[in-house]
Amino acid sequence: MKKLIKGLREFKANYVSTHQELFEQLSQGQKPRVLFVTCSDSRVDPNLITQADLGELFVIRNAGNIIPPFGATKGGEGATIEYAVQALGIRQVIVCGHSHCGAMKGLMKLHSLRDEMPLVHDWLKYAEATRLLVKEHYTQYKGEELLEILTAENVLTQIENLRTYPVIRSKLYQGQLKIYAWIYNIEKGEVLAFDPETHAYVLPQSQLKSDDTDERRLKEEFLNGNNIKNNISEQETAVDPPQEFFYDVHQRFPITRLSKDQMDRIYRGSRRN
Amino acid sequence: MKKLIKGLREFKANYVSTHQELFEQLSQGQKPRVLFVTCSDSRVDPNLITQADLGELFVIRNAGNIIPPFGATKGGEGATIEYAVQALGIRQVIVCGHSHCGAMKGLMKLHSLRDEMPLVHDWLKYAEATRLLVKEHYTQYKGEELLEILTAENVLTQIENLRTYPVIRSKLYQGQLKIYAWIYNIEKGEVLAFDPETHAYVLPQSQLKSDDTDERRLKEEFLNGNNIKNNISEQETAVDPPQEFFYDVHQRFPITRLSKDQMDRIYRGSRRN
Amino acid sequence: MKKLIKGLREFKANYVSTHQELFEQLSQGQKPRVLFVTCSDSRVDPNLITQADLGELFVIRNAGNIIPPFGATKGGEGATIEYAVQALGIRQVIVCGHSHCGAMKGLMKLHSLRDEMPLVHDWLKYAEATRLLVKEHYTQYKGEELLEILTAENVLTQIENLRTYPVIRSKLYQGQLKIYAWIYNIEKGEVLAFDPETHAYVLPQSQLKSDDTDERRLKEEFLNGNNIKNNISEQETAVDPPQEFFYDVHQRFPITRLSKDQMDRIYRGSRRN
Amino acid sequence: MKKLIKGLREFKANYVSTHQELFEQLSQGQKPRVLFVTCSDSRVDPNLITQADLGELFVIRNAGNIIPPFGATKGGEGATIEYAVQALGIRQVIVCGHSHCGAMKGLMKLHSLRDEMPLVHDWLKYAEATRLLVKEHYTQYKGEELLEILTAENVLTQIENLRTYPVIRSKLYQGQLKIYAWIYNIEKGEVLAFDPETHAYVLPQSQLKSDDTDERRLKEEFLNGNNIKNNISEQETAVDPPQEFFYDVHQRFPITRLSKDQMDRIYRGSRRN
Repeated sequence: MKKLIKGLREFKANYVSTHQELFEQLSQGQKPRVLFVTCSDSRVDPNLITQADLGELFVIRNAGNIIPPFGATKGGEGATIEYAVQALGIRQVIVCGHSHCGAMKGLMKLHSLRDEMPLVHDWLKYAEATRLLVKEHYTQYKGEELLEILTAENVLTQIENLRTYPVIRSKLYQGQLKIYAWIYNIEKGEVLAFDPETHAYVLPQSQLKSDDTDERRLKEEFLNGNNIKNNISEQETAVDPPQEFFYDVHQRFPITRLSKDQMDRIYRGSRRN
Repeated sequence: MKKLIKGLREFKANYVSTHQELFEQLSQGQKPRVLFVTCSDSRVDPNLITQADLGELFVIRNAGNIIPPFGATKGGEGATIEYAVQALGIRQVIVCGHSHCGAMKGLMKLHSLRDEMPLVHDWLKYAEATRLLVKEHYTQYKGEELLEILTAENVLTQIENLRTYPVIRSKLYQGQLKIYAWIYNIEKGEVLAFDPETHAYVLPQSQLKSDDTDERRLKEEFLNGNNIKNNISEQETAVDPPQEFFYDVHQRFPITRLSKDQMDRIYRGSRRN
Repeated sequence: MKKLIKGLREFKANYVSTHQELFEQLSQGQKPRVLFVTCSDSRVDPNLITQADLGELFVIRNAGNIIPPFGATKGGEGATIEYAVQALGIRQVIVCGHSHCGAMKGLMKLHSLRDEMPLVHDWLKYAEATRLLVKEHYTQYKGEELLEILTAENVLTQIENLRTYPVIRSKLYQGQLKIYAWIYNIEKGEVLAFDPETHAYVLPQSQLKSDDTDERRLKEEFLNGNNIKNNISEQETAVDPPQEFFYDVHQRFPITRLSKDQMDRIYRGSRRN
Repeated sequence: MKKLIKGLREFKANYVSTHQELFEQLSQGQKPRVLFVTCSDSRVDPNLITQADLGELFVIRNAGNIIPPFGATKGGEGATIEYAVQALGIRQVIVCGHSHCGAMKGLMKLHSLRDEMPLVHDWLKYAEATRLLVKEHYTQYKGEELLEILTAENVLTQIENLRTYPVIRSKLYQGQLKIYAWIYNIEKGEVLAFDPETHAYVLPQSQLKSDDTDERRLKEEFLNGNNIKNNISEQETAVDPPQEFFYDVHQRFPITRLSKDQMDRIYRGSRRN
């Protein structure tokens, strides 16, 4: 605690004093462009890993970066999502899981938690879709590999849950919202983003090229008067890597449509590079 | 989004590469000492303002740094608190509000939210004790001042709620847990901590002196073999600013400072006479 | 049932006829000074053990004298507490447990209740803080002794829960409400009150002396024009046994003893420096 | 409070000392025969008005003697009912309303409570069936009369709710449970019981004669080998006044089957004698 208080002093002395303009501006209000949903894990720091400034990320953090389906709880997740989209007009959501996630480990030994940590046990109910999906379709994996698959699939499960919120559904419907699936690898300090084209988590940078192509395609569609696309490409830079993701989200389910080989790549993705 | 992806690259290139040892160690697991509960507001960055390293802060973030009372919701707050205390053995909790809080502004015009943002409206129910208390006892304040009072009182209300969680009550019971009330001032980039001695939010540093005294006392108690205190003083530096705060908490049911003999009297009491 | 009907007749013939004035007055309305929360147990009769007249005690009774935290249920406890404080202006709450409590016995064998008595099982969740606290800190006790400890601690747990209700928090805030922890010993027909000074449940009478001192202090404060105290001491006799208890409660956030100037500092604090 | 503490002393000195045998026996456990559900109102004292001894009445008290339908809340009512029937084997339930009931007055101006007393407002939702029924079928009544009708009908509404609990339904089904509807008149100190034969609340005593007849009939049925009846008459004195009530409960609904004249008698009953 002493260290934290020293930190408060250093922050003010070294950071605040050198960012007067920023703080002046922040006192006027916040205009974050991204809702960042991630785990409470102390090894994950959204602003640090994205090098985002104060004022850029609106953040939800809980054990397991879980988003209960609309109506399932009266907890803070739904209210904060509603506030982000409705009050702040945020149009991009990143759901970011991470390697070595304690919540995902808990999901692997759920029963043992019932008495030991009843609230955690009940909370993981909202990741049950992940547990069942992985149990039924990744029977051959164990230990570390299984944990990686759970973590990767859980981000997609939570995005499904996120899509049940009225404000999210309505904005998605008009193509005014984008949702990104990320995994943060703690030991490498590196993020992989879900790429629906390859059905794998890959380095976002690796997608930039294909996005240029994508950008061209969007431009053409625009010339062809595709207004929805038009709106999207106006709304933000057309090089958002997982651009295709959302069309893909609509097509993709059930994941079991993937070939065994494709499935493997989902988690191999997070071990490549 | 393009900016964030560039940030990911910079983070790996500039930060990860220069902190190899830290990342090596983090891959072994997390041992955070503090549970930091704060708002989702994009202008609040717990790690930045405390200059904490990766691995030091276990973080819960939602709109309004609200903690529903035990059993009130099935949301992530309770599960994450349970995980922090039970699984990670965290013994310090900081509940940190901040100036210009959108949730507290919402509390000032609650009715208008009922239809507009129903989830936010219902979520603010867990700050109703703050609203009523301020409405009944700070009738003379308006606007900015009222907002500051709401923010300051709400942190204390949420600490009341926090105390209803079994794991929290049990650890508080024997003085193995400390709870701190902080307010982060966005424009100044400065934190004030609730000081029960002066009943005001003050600069933590300003409390260090009295804590030195306190530190000495703890040392003496240690020499006198007061093991419980010993454990505490081992558990963390003895200069926790609102030190007295928690002693005071225990004074209510200060079983923690009791000798085994005194403890027995709690129930023997009902057999005496 | 026949006996009860005979009782109704006797009551009217012997009691009502001899208390005409009281019944005349009661028909005008109720002005109870105390909210008495106790168990449904047939061996506990609040009016009999306190020799209170009709009209003096507003009573909540359920299995285990349990008070779910604010928002945890939609049951009668919260509504009745709100009505007592808001509509009736009650300013004293007694939470009274008792020896040989069936609910506390249930807490000792919680799992066996899950199927057998599901509603009781779920209800005891609001005494989980008691169960965990006792399990972790009174490991050396068994049977009757353990039951006594559970009963004594549960009253304090329920007071923690009670404090989360908006109307309670608001009145406690300015010292306009007092909460007492009692244990009724069924075989002795005797009540013990929690005394924070000795950290034991003791005979209320044994505390009267120290209270006289306290009474004097209150008188002095009155002479010194401490109006808040004045209101309190008018509100009830100054010899409330666990008098210090509640002062102590306020010491945590003892806004009540603060001068207007001190009150202001609570929020000014966040503007100073 | 001083008065209550004096009362505790008097109780022990005058009552306990003269009932040693009773207290010795109570320490062995409780065997109450009746679950008594009534209002928290300070003017209602179940043991006093029925002249019942300690150990005879298992008591639930909340604002408005309301019993939420099974599954509607996680409050104490359901758990306490389950405990009474399942753990204690209680076979008689009395739901007792009373004149000048504050909760029933609240039901007459429900909307005004929404902001003023939100928990009370939500709680009265479980008396909504009473409010609607009376609003639709007793349009010509106002003020005091309307309040009497609400009070009388609400007891029957709450019995409907009570019947939704699994343990209640199961015992009723086997004829092993009886439910009685009472109204306690505060100014007269007199109880009226609902008599399904006349569809009015009448003095219980007035029913004893017809019950003797009823008793004979039961005896005959017994001779004729009617086992269910046999069980009932063995289980308790056959002279329970509202004996017929329960058959009637099954036939009776909807109350609107009654003639206008019969309806009037429901509340006139409580003004007769």
